[in-house]
Amino acid sequence: MGSSEKIDLKTPKEVLTNKYGEDSKLIFDLQDQGGELCSLRYDLTVPFARFLAMNKHIKAIKRYHIGKVYRRDQPIMTRGRFREFYQCDFDIAGQYESMLADAEIIAIMHQVLSRLKIGEFVIKINHRKLLDGIFEACGVPCASFRTICSSVDKLDKVSCSANIQTPWEEVRSEMISEKGLGYEVADHIGSFVSKKGDPCSLLKELASDPILLDNASAQLGIAELQRLFSFINMMVVKEEQQKSRVILDLSLARGLDYYTGMITEAVLFENKHNFVGMPQFTLFFIGSIAGGGRYDGLVQNFSNSGHTIPCVGMSIGIERIFAIMEAQQAVSSIVSKTIPTQVLVASLGDPLLSEHLAICQMLRSANIPTETPLKQRNRPFDIFEYAEKNMVPILVIFGQDEIAAGSVRIKQAYDREDKGKLVPIASLVQEIALKLENTDL
Amino acid sequence: MGSSEKIDLKTPKEVLTNKYGEDSKLIFDLQDQGGELCSLRYDLTVPFARFLAMNKHIKAIKRYHIGKVYRRDQPIMTRGRFREFYQCDFDIAGQYESMLADAEIIAIMHQVLSRLKIGEFVIKINHRKLLDGIFEACGVPCASFRTICSSVDKLDKVSCSANIQTPWEEVRSEMISEKGLGYEVADHIGSFVSKKGDPCSLLKELASDPILLDNASAQLGIAELQRLFSFINMMVVKEEQQKSRVILDLSLARGLDYYTGMITEAVLFENKHNFVGMPQFTLFFIGSIAGGGRYDGLVQNFSNSGHTIPCVGMSIGIERIFAIMEAQQAVSSIVSKTIPTQVLVASLGDPLLSEHLAICQMLRSANIPTETPLKQRNRPFDIFEYAEKNMVPILVIFGQDEIAAGSVRIKQAYDREDKGKLVPIASLVQEIALKLENTDL
Repeated sequence: MGSSEKIDLKTPKEVLTNKYGEDSKLIFDLQDQGGELCSLRYDLTVPFARFLAMNKHIKAIKRYHIGKVYRRDQPIMTRGRFREFYQCDFDIAGQYESMLADAEIIAIMHQVLSRLKIGEFVIKINHRKLLDGIFEACGVPCASFRTICSSVDKLDKVSCSANIQTPWEEVRSEMISEKGLGYEVADHIGSFVSKKGDPCSLLKELASDPILLDNASAQLGIAELQRLFSFINMMVVKEEQQKSRVILDLSLARGLDYYTGMITEAVLFENKHNFVGMPQFTLFFIGSIAGGGRYDGLVQNFSNSGHTIPCVGMSIGIERIFAIMEAQQAVSSIVSKTIPTQVLVASLGDPLLSEHLAICQMLRSANIPTETPLKQRNRPFDIFEYAEKNMVPILVIFGQDEIAAGSVRIKQAYDREDKGKLVPIASLVQEIALKLENTDL
Repeated sequence: MGSSEKIDLKTPKEVLTNKYGEDSKLIFDLQDQGGELCSLRYDLTVPFARFLAMNKHIKAIKRYHIGKVYRRDQPIMTRGRFREFYQCDFDIAGQYESMLADAEIIAIMHQVLSRLKIGEFVIKINHRKLLDGIFEACGVPCASFRTICSSVDKLDKVSCSANIQTPWEEVRSEMISEKGLGYEVADHIGSFVSKKGDPCSLLKELASDPILLDNASAQLGIAELQRLFSFINMMVVKEEQQKSRVILDLSLARGLDYYTGMITEAVLFENKHNFVGMPQFTLFFIGSIAGGGRYDGLVQNFSNSGHTIPCVGMSIGIERIFAIMEAQQAVSSIVSKTIPTQVLVASLGDPLLSEHLAICQMLRSANIPTETPLKQRNRPFDIFEYAEKNMVPILVIFGQDEIAAGSVRIKQAYDREDKGKLVPIASLVQEIALKLENTDL
């Protein structure tokens, strides 16, 4: 991970541009810097593939990576869509049993999204070879597979526009007028990509579909998906009446060119009951929160010697997850403790800064998050207000009286009437540690 | 922090360029992107100041921020010097008792560096107003303060070159021939910037220096430093015969233009005994590992309405710290556990993938990091080798015999002779949890 961090700034622009298909226009370019053309990375996948190409001794690796990526896109704050944002990627590279690494990726996605407790979600799965087989069987010329795939990818996105057309009508019209397909071909594709649901029965239906029966690409896709779902069934926990599901969705296409096999996307389930009072569109518009797939040919792209290694991975959009969590917290009026401070050292009036600093240091050395107001004189009101606002549970009072007694006074910050407990300075740390153990915060 | 993340990409290039003095040439420019000139951030300080200018309701804030910054510089791997690297910043903004926030910054720097256990370090401190006072008293024209300050800043850096001149001779020559100072003025500056050591005695000496006696700027700097060191004495722990010290060093200048008061830098102490066998230059050349200072005027720079807020902060260079730690680990031959896996689920030969996945899932759901080889058939040798190489302490064997008995076999991965313990599947999680509690790894 460290190594890939150090190389990705220098990924030449030309190397980046032919990896993302029609999305390449969103790459941020850098001016010529002393003879070097550079770009800001569009994702974490291409830099990872380049890292593998440059480190041929790595035959198998599982890695995660959290980092920033950049898109020359129009930001939409309410949808958690930015020009500069964090992704969290998880990838498995290496030669494994067929579909086993793919299943592990889906299981991890399911576990991460379940534990985040952001609501019900659906993990959609499809397969590029199945899509290609459908395109081929419907009569799309081979050279148009990727661009037709990009059109199918818009089925999700155009559903958000204020257009009166259905998403399929819009995509159909693009296929016919912009990409030159015949009506029948487009409608035939439409009859396939509208299919979604329970993987087991849908795969059975596809396997016996007369159009796909003698299409090698489609049959390979179907066989791999059958194997994938049998593994997923072993790994995805179905306890606690899980409503979050893994489904097969033939309309899932994923815009990026580099996928070669299984593709996946997780979308948040619209749940009106959980978000009463929220503008409906906020959550609906967030849509996809994670995605990924298999990209077996990408490493070879970066290797002069033809070195190759199969890869599968996924990416979670951190800002989108945060946008959902913030919206949920706003609705449920959950108040989070935003600063970690557990103890506020103060005197009620006396200017005893140096003494407070020494007490602070004693507590901090014992790993107890401690603050002192950085002013000489503080009104008791300000001290209590600060403690309440920041949920600091404990006050340590160290004024003239306490100094005279060689002691400090430990007080509940929430209870202004609490007279507190006078303890010798020597046992301060121990007393506070005990008190914190019995505190909810 | 979240908000500043979202705005800093859009910091206009012009806003950045007049903040860093002669270092501005290291800013990474972006090509014109649809009518916008952008740059990659040079540090985390300027974006923080801009955040404060845009959020006037924030009257006081302590924050830390870990993020990437970019320099159009020549990378030097052995010195931990990159074009793209992480900084960790800590800043305090707001109106506090004089020098109290400054002292807190120094105390945090001391605590962080001590806990990292990367060896002995020295925290150097100086004051821009004291430096300006010295320049003024020595006869430098006011307009040349910043450029002469940049020259002094090179005292540290040129010491690394293979030049036969002393660092001071090189800086002196730059002051005279490039920056137009007279010989006497330069030599007079030289007599001051060579002073370093115990703050208490050195400040006493400076306070009564006849040249500085009636210089207001120098006297203000001296008074603030006296107050600063008295606070530092309360906060910096001197237990355990700490050799790491906080000193006053008049040669410390810091290149950046925006500092207005206290400035600081932490350097690793060269300790030949700890690093026997390492090329001497590796550690010596790493030099500065953290730095900072007070920048009271920077926020106003970004505010049309003249809004201002005093700030002080520090920055730690993550890659430099890592370079030191890696060098130390290489010397001491410490082997770190690089993957978190605690349990490897396998059978010795039988192709039982689905069953292994179910066992994996059981352990993972209980938060026990678990792996299974992603192949059907594995030679026992490969399994043991994988466990040893990655320090996985426990093997769970689930083959035909165990399935027949409704049990799994738990084995020490290190002991190939260990026959292991057969336990019912229902008590697997409990047994593993117990075993992990008693394991060193």
